[in-house]
Amino acid sequence: MRRMSELLSFASDYMEGAHAEILQRLVATNLEQTAGYGLDPYSEAAREKIRRSCRASHAEIHFLAGGTQTNRIVIAALLRPYEGVIAADTGHITVHEAGAVEAGGHKVLALPHTDGKLTARAIETCLRAYHEDANRDHMVRPGMVYLSHPTEYGTLYSMDELEVISAICRTNRIPLFLDGARLAYALGCPANELTLPAIARLTDVFYIGGTKCGALCGEAVVFPKPAVVPHFFTIVKQSGALMAKGRVLGIQFDTLFTDGLYERGGAHAVAAADRIRAALTEKGYPLAVDSPTNQIFLALDEAQLAHLSAHVAMGFWEQQENVTVMRIATSWATQDADVERLIAVL
Amino acid sequence: MRRMSELLSFASDYMEGAHAEILQRLVATNLEQTAGYGLDPYSEAAREKIRRSCRASHAEIHFLAGGTQTNRIVIAALLRPYEGVIAADTGHITVHEAGAVEAGGHKVLALPHTDGKLTARAIETCLRAYHEDANRDHMVRPGMVYLSHPTEYGTLYSMDELEVISAICRTNRIPLFLDGARLAYALGCPANELTLPAIARLTDVFYIGGTKCGALCGEAVVFPKPAVVPHFFTIVKQSGALMAKGRVLGIQFDTLFTDGLYERGGAHAVAAADRIRAALTEKGYPLAVDSPTNQIFLALDEAQLAHLSAHVAMGFWEQQENVTVMRIATSWATQDADVERLIAVL
Amino acid sequence: MRRMSELLSFASDYMEGAHAEILQRLVATNLEQTAGYGLDPYSEAAREKIRRSCRASHAEIHFLAGGTQTNRIVIAALLRPYEGVIAADTGHITVHEAGAVEAGGHKVLALPHTDGKLTARAIETCLRAYHEDANRDHMVRPGMVYLSHPTEYGTLYSMDELEVISAICRTNRIPLFLDGARLAYALGCPANELTLPAIARLTDVFYIGGTKCGALCGEAVVFPKPAVVPHFFTIVKQSGALMAKGRVLGIQFDTLFTDGLYERGGAHAVAAADRIRAALTEKGYPLAVDSPTNQIFLALDEAQLAHLSAHVAMGFWEQQENVTVMRIATSWATQDADVERLIAVL
Amino acid sequence: MRRMSELLSFASDYMEGAHAEILQRLVATNLEQTAGYGLDPYSEAAREKIRRSCRASHAEIHFLAGGTQTNRIVIAALLRPYEGVIAADTGHITVHEAGAVEAGGHKVLALPHTDGKLTARAIETCLRAYHEDANRDHMVRPGMVYLSHPTEYGTLYSMDELEVISAICRTNRIPLFLDGARLAYALGCPANELTLPAIARLTDVFYIGGTKCGALCGEAVVFPKPAVVPHFFTIVKQSGALMAKGRVLGIQFDTLFTDGLYERGGAHAVAAADRIRAALTEKGYPLAVDSPTNQIFLALDEAQLAHLSAHVAMGFWEQQENVTVMRIATSWATQDADVERLIAVL
Repeated sequence: MRRMSELLSFASDYMEGAHAEILQRLVATNLEQTAGYGLDPYSEAAREKIRRSCRASHAEIHFLAGGTQTNRIVIAALLRPYEGVIAADTGHITVHEAGAVEAGGHKVLALPHTDGKLTARAIETCLRAYHEDANRDHMVRPGMVYLSHPTEYGTLYSMDELEVISAICRTNRIPLFLDGARLAYALGCPANELTLPAIARLTDVFYIGGTKCGALCGEAVVFPKPAVVPHFFTIVKQSGALMAKGRVLGIQFDTLFTDGLYERGGAHAVAAADRIRAALTEKGYPLAVDSPTNQIFLALDEAQLAHLSAHVAMGFWEQQENVTVMRIATSWATQDADVERLIAVL
Repeated sequence: MRRMSELLSFASDYMEGAHAEILQRLVATNLEQTAGYGLDPYSEAAREKIRRSCRASHAEIHFLAGGTQTNRIVIAALLRPYEGVIAADTGHITVHEAGAVEAGGHKVLALPHTDGKLTARAIETCLRAYHEDANRDHMVRPGMVYLSHPTEYGTLYSMDELEVISAICRTNRIPLFLDGARLAYALGCPANELTLPAIARLTDVFYIGGTKCGALCGEAVVFPKPAVVPHFFTIVKQSGALMAKGRVLGIQFDTLFTDGLYERGGAHAVAAADRIRAALTEKGYPLAVDSPTNQIFLALDEAQLAHLSAHVAMGFWEQQENVTVMRIATSWATQDADVERLIAVL
Repeated sequence: MRRMSELLSFASDYMEGAHAEILQRLVATNLEQTAGYGLDPYSEAAREKIRRSCRASHAEIHFLAGGTQTNRIVIAALLRPYEGVIAADTGHITVHEAGAVEAGGHKVLALPHTDGKLTARAIETCLRAYHEDANRDHMVRPGMVYLSHPTEYGTLYSMDELEVISAICRTNRIPLFLDGARLAYALGCPANELTLPAIARLTDVFYIGGTKCGALCGEAVVFPKPAVVPHFFTIVKQSGALMAKGRVLGIQFDTLFTDGLYERGGAHAVAAADRIRAALTEKGYPLAVDSPTNQIFLALDEAQLAHLSAHVAMGFWEQQENVTVMRIATSWATQDADVERLIAVL
Repeated sequence: MRRMSELLSFASDYMEGAHAEILQRLVATNLEQTAGYGLDPYSEAAREKIRRSCRASHAEIHFLAGGTQTNRIVIAALLRPYEGVIAADTGHITVHEAGAVEAGGHKVLALPHTDGKLTARAIETCLRAYHEDANRDHMVRPGMVYLSHPTEYGTLYSMDELEVISAICRTNRIPLFLDGARLAYALGCPANELTLPAIARLTDVFYIGGTKCGALCGEAVVFPKPAVVPHFFTIVKQSGALMAKGRVLGIQFDTLFTDGLYERGGAHAVAAADRIRAALTEKGYPLAVDSPTNQIFLALDEAQLAHLSAHVAMGFWEQQENVTVMRIATSWATQDADVERLIAVL
């Protein structure tokens, strides 16, 4: 039996190990001797594949172990001491990273979200307010913009939205950082407009999430133009994020970017989520957010919550006045049989 | 063929993947669904096994990914802002962690080493000098002691040495932290006197290294007495060191602490190193340090260096006036055939 | 002529030097030789007078140079790395200290204000939300409460309000810090209920502002119970805030706490503000906030703004939809003639 | 009586208040209303005078309150996270600032001193060692050089020495920072070769010390070329070092740079020290260091120490095997009568 409890579990997208292909590669290469710290041939091969996927032949790519680590390091490396990072008030860095950005010395300038997204208008208003404030020299300067795609609510930026936000950042000469912790679930989603080459063209740095998308661990940080942050390698080392056996990350990303595995894993999860969404709608369960990716947010009344909780482990999101928002997350590892069982209990 | 080049490689102890047993466990458990962040049953089982091995039934144990990360987090968590950490001037934190301790806000109070070890006398002199200095309130307070065992030179503290250092720390009410990045190579060494229960008894926190001792990654931080650092979990999260799929670390340590695998891996490496040391001595190669573990430091003249470098990849350590210090490292993965080939070329 | 321009200036309360008595004392003691770093007899005398005024005979008192410095140091000294400080979203630390708290590693947990004040209800909701959140170990822990009295809007906490907030903090075992940058203007205000002994009884640390209350510079940090922060002296030194000639601060506070000068300066400013407020009301100028101390916030339409700006330098506060909020600040140094001239132009 | 005890005091150069001219200016300008934060006309006038004295017409100048504060802020503002600052092991930042540089995130790369000075050779060796180290990407990068002039031992760099060090820094593209906490005692010393224009030409940033040279407090940070650190004003604010009444610093430096007061104060102290040095030599007291400025270091045997200590308060420096090193410091405020009395007791 593969589950720890009798409940169906759709609580999150990092409950299983990794794509079988990844484990096979780790086993096959296990006794090879390679250089450490990401200087091995597997990491180099992975970088080259990612460069090709992004159509960014000079991109600088570093492999880190996890999302909070990546956000903290990238943000601290890009900001000057007096600068803060603009993010949605629902952004992962704003709430759920235990103050990692602040521990690195920087304020999160949290703006109200729209379905988990930052709007161009909110960013512009924030920048204008700063520049027009007579006291701005006594205030934190907005020094970069942080987006997640998909967002924490499973929603997606359109190409138009990213184009406009990118243009605002370039006009204001501040970098744009896209957190792709769940990027596979955008790339594998029919509604998604943002391809890797588009993201590489419109941002200054982004990361391709591994941990939530079928790797044991690992995020690939991509600077489409190299040398944006000099000595980034040493910054990673100093932050305690340089893996001695860097090949563990390199092999995983090399595998994820072979034969489209990364995107296929995402598409699998989204297809499963689509079936569940269709069933939920049919049965009259109200959705809290209209999200097209692998995360489904339900606004449940008491009876619905009691009923579902008896059969399915979900993620708790938020208590609202009359409803409880719960999350169902599918993943690259979601089994068809579990989807059927879930639909059956609705 | 399993090597990337034709050279024999004894450059370091983190060039291969992991013990086969670890990969087998990762494969076997891959599709099980578990809670994240180290709250899974494998991590809990690993903690329990480590507690038993340390005879410390209430020990608080956290799994982190790498050594620099662990040093940085433990040191920052234990020190108050005005405190620094006493370490040997050869200590890993002093030189080779890119200023991670300082980036966390603290000075490394580096004392001269003796064969890579701190002496009780040096620690006492440092503490006395501070307490007797009329300007001490303008100075960094020595707030903890950092040892590595084995040291960066492969040497070992004796039980007497650790007892005395521990007593000094307790008298001065400052914590003692032991970096066990290579602890398997002490535990597997006939000359070693420091068992896990002894270390648990004499230190306030230590870590059992996985990365250099047969894991893909991972270090087990052990606080023999719990709650020394409140909210250490959140500190780990904030530092970007909390693995979402914590089971990846839990499964590895559970395996390493099953049937003595951890110690056996160390013993294997030390036996190989002993054979190499005997051959080196026989052939008249001078050792730079008298170390009994898996690291061998050679003081090579030009001809010896040229000869060996043509056949063996070694680690460069230090250029001295007439000799070059090079390191040969064996590991849990060292193959007997490679040891034979190395001895043959001496 | 004593002004730099022809405009009447009520722009802020730190535009002049210091009470004449302070300068006289500096001149009179100038060539005396004293120990540095606040160990001189003037600093000790000032501490003793403050202890008596606060009826806190064991209070630990440190003199710092300015408000942002004090806030940054006190907050960083009291919080653990994973903790943040609860403050009103209008709090000085939230907006106008250039991210000093975040640069010290901590998040400002900004709550909506009521006339510049934190409400007990908002604090309790914040604390409860944290403690009930299943993800709290991934979040910043509310670790202290920051109030200003008077607030940035010139308003005052009532005794009841402070009692309740203090009780909440003690129940939750988190320290309460009161920023008294403008405390003289509370102590000198008839509407104020919070005496120094009350503040000393109900908070864990507070400061008595000098810079805005008639000193050249200087804030007196008071810990009503000593040793709350061990080695606070060294923390101050490390932060670059320990004045070599500490007597410059000691002499000023010794003078401010002789014959009630501190409170008298505040009362002078409040009396002037009251006269201005009465005239404003009579002339139909709407107040943006109902504040009883030395700061007056006006909600001016375009014509009023143009008229007043032609005669008086005010502080710009905020652009609202149809009105501009401007601040008039009186001080210990406000001249009666200037008050008359201001009233005449209304 | 102007002393707190019956002992003659030569313990330090910050035991009195300020030049009488400074207090007179503070009194004369006291009720003028000026803008805050260093934007007042006195600060501007002081900047202009300093620019002229340095023959650096575009120099960017900021006034801070004290030396540790200045060192911490300038160093943190110039270094990238992975960089450290080269300093003599006797440098003030190395030992006596309570870890302020490390608290700002940076390692002090301490090199052995020669009479308190860094040598060009030591700096070059350090830089070469870093650049030749195969592991340099895992190490702290030497990112700037810190000198004090006069040094903590009262010694002076020659023009040749500064030229060579400056050239090394420029070749290596790392900034050179000169700490002039006691600069008046160099400028007023016949043996000094380094004029303000020379310092401005050869360094990237330096400061003109006020606190130890006749001001109540204050250091003038000079960037000979502007905009080396963008938004330095905000960095100062964030660090808690921006004085609200910036004019208190501006008026002092305006006065110090009027009619050569700064240099005259230094010359007065050096002349007094020269008289004392001559008498000491005549009486056979051995000097520990050959320093030409206002600090005299004596190597006293037990009898000499007992005799002198009975009459003169000196600074304790260091216990050596058979002698105790004590410091006599004169200052701008040293009285001729006290010099006579000191000489009389030798």
